[in-house]
Amino acid sequence: MRILITNIGELTTNVAEGDDVCGTLHDVAVLVEGERVAWVGPAADAPDADEIVDAAGRAVIPGFVDSHSHLVFGGDRAAEFEARMQGQKYAAGGIRSTVAATRAATDDELRARLRGFLDEMLAQGTTTVEIKSGYGLDVATEERLVRLAAEVTPEVTFLGAHVVPAEYADRGDEYVDLVTGEMLDACAPHAKWIDVFCETGAFTVPQSRRVLEAGIARGLQPRVHASQLGPGEGVQLAVELGAASIDHGTYLTDDDVTALAASDTVLTLLPGVEFSTRQPYPDARRLIDAGVTVAIACDTNPGSSFTSSMPFCIAVAVRDMRMTVAEAIHAATAGGAAALRRDDIGRIAPGMRADLVLLKSPSRVHLAYRPGVPLVETVWKDGVRFA
Amino acid sequence: MRILITNIGELTTNVAEGDDVCGTLHDVAVLVEGERVAWVGPAADAPDADEIVDAAGRAVIPGFVDSHSHLVFGGDRAAEFEARMQGQKYAAGGIRSTVAATRAATDDELRARLRGFLDEMLAQGTTTVEIKSGYGLDVATEERLVRLAAEVTPEVTFLGAHVVPAEYADRGDEYVDLVTGEMLDACAPHAKWIDVFCETGAFTVPQSRRVLEAGIARGLQPRVHASQLGPGEGVQLAVELGAASIDHGTYLTDDDVTALAASDTVLTLLPGVEFSTRQPYPDARRLIDAGVTVAIACDTNPGSSFTSSMPFCIAVAVRDMRMTVAEAIHAATAGGAAALRRDDIGRIAPGMRADLVLLKSPSRVHLAYRPGVPLVETVWKDGVRFA
Repeated sequence: MRILITNIGELTTNVAEGDDVCGTLHDVAVLVEGERVAWVGPAADAPDADEIVDAAGRAVIPGFVDSHSHLVFGGDRAAEFEARMQGQKYAAGGIRSTVAATRAATDDELRARLRGFLDEMLAQGTTTVEIKSGYGLDVATEERLVRLAAEVTPEVTFLGAHVVPAEYADRGDEYVDLVTGEMLDACAPHAKWIDVFCETGAFTVPQSRRVLEAGIARGLQPRVHASQLGPGEGVQLAVELGAASIDHGTYLTDDDVTALAASDTVLTLLPGVEFSTRQPYPDARRLIDAGVTVAIACDTNPGSSFTSSMPFCIAVAVRDMRMTVAEAIHAATAGGAAALRRDDIGRIAPGMRADLVLLKSPSRVHLAYRPGVPLVETVWKDGVRFA
Repeated sequence: MRILITNIGELTTNVAEGDDVCGTLHDVAVLVEGERVAWVGPAADAPDADEIVDAAGRAVIPGFVDSHSHLVFGGDRAAEFEARMQGQKYAAGGIRSTVAATRAATDDELRARLRGFLDEMLAQGTTTVEIKSGYGLDVATEERLVRLAAEVTPEVTFLGAHVVPAEYADRGDEYVDLVTGEMLDACAPHAKWIDVFCETGAFTVPQSRRVLEAGIARGLQPRVHASQLGPGEGVQLAVELGAASIDHGTYLTDDDVTALAASDTVLTLLPGVEFSTRQPYPDARRLIDAGVTVAIACDTNPGSSFTSSMPFCIAVAVRDMRMTVAEAIHAATAGGAAALRRDDIGRIAPGMRADLVLLKSPSRVHLAYRPGVPLVETVWKDGVRFA
């Protein structure tokens, strides 16, 4: 099956051309063959195909790569959100209420919810999503969460070290024993990534190191939640261990920025979190100007960021983190791919997976220029078209 | 035709009950008969109907009343937006580039664009929209704009005094002669409202008074754009003339707030404008606590706010203007109705127009809790169901 998408007014390839990080082409066509992109070139030179899609001058971008989400959970925390908007401060402890609801949910309930979120994301242009466990916090439930996540994505992260559960209060080291022992044994077969929330109120730096090193020893690759609620040593630890990404980075020291710039570790910005917790926005300009590779992700979760909209996150990153629109789109596609160490997604070029989004607008700029407006016309994932 | 929407988990009636400005009911049903609401009550007591819609515990709210938009125009200003996000300041003069594109567009081009925006809005839950002229700025084009707007809404506003067009540069008073003379003659038959942009760079207070009084003399009702770019006397003028609404209000003095609180004039907040121009957000808390009636609208226009998403505006109002979620939803429905002096929309009660939105979520809170996510399941306008 060969599909030709032609009369593309503006194509974001992310194959950089000089100063244009988006590698923008105009008046082009893309040929999809099976689940891969086969050809990109001037519309006038387009080859034949079985199906022709007329983009009518509109924009095409790579599917969004959402490299940070927590999609397998029970319940929601709308009342906590409402209270926070009336002045109550965000605290990581709220995670425990989701843990109770998640443990109480059946596999089928969690699966139905998960599939609902994935449909919602696909309709908004997200073609790859990373999913973390972390609302189980006991061996049986964490195993369920990574197993259910693995049914829908290869990008599964074991985050048993999300927060210390109530039953281990004041016994954090014993909980880390469990996470790095029996829980890791149960979860590692389903996961690609090991993650830890390295933050005051969650896990200390020595505890975080134990978690990450245990995961690495089992063949998992590290990524780290750090510097969300205040500065800390999580970034330095992540860089030292060669983490693919540190996520949040709301509070970064100059040393953190220098270390990131000299590393292969991506800084994943989560604009929905600052939006929904009313925290100050990190300054993406400072990071990009220092040479740090930046990704944007939704961090979909019921506590600190319940959006699943990459366009919303892009708009906020442009407005409040001082990114250009091109940088934000790049961070939400190629940046996410880098944060997942994937070289087959996030760009549109021959050989890449055919993950493409046709927008209703003539330009990608509209994703920030028209915040909140559903602008996704058609999505292809692995060459398969969704409404 | 009688439609019963039943098993509504949370119904926002806006028929206030004590401290609950939203008049929230749980486990209820709404009976629609023709284009009106016929009955609201406990689901268990629901009458028979020709069609039953099972809300399955989800939330229903009144359709959004978007009381401020500029939907009839040609072209867009994506490049200007992109430049602004890289540091260029917003200036009202950019309006003139849209004027050139609008004058060049045919009626059918403008009509197609307008209908596209209305479909987009309806899909996002907006069932009533006010539409202003103001991108013609000559007699023939302004007449076209109000005439095209009147094809789709009764809430048509003549805003010939949007900005002084280039051909009248330094002859603002002469332009006001035209607006209050020949242009008003051509436009008044199609319009309900007279509006003026009372701001440095647009129209002075004496010019604004002339425009509003001329409109009132022709049977139009006044509303005013003021205090968007800096403090001014527009609010006082609006209150003195009994305007239904002053819109923007980004810069308000204490005297402005006092005058508004003692008046029937609504203050219409436009969160998309501050978002998209990176201006400081007005403090809705200060207004509400002082007793001012507040509305939220999108101000959809290609310059300062190209969103058409009331849910997006609600989320920003909650996050950045210190409104509670209930206040923001109320402002986007009953507040908008007050800003249009309409008593048949903005609430759900027997006799009101059947403008209803069934959400995908169990609560209206999710509109702010899940920013950017399309949460509208079904919309009824005048009792007619849209996808």
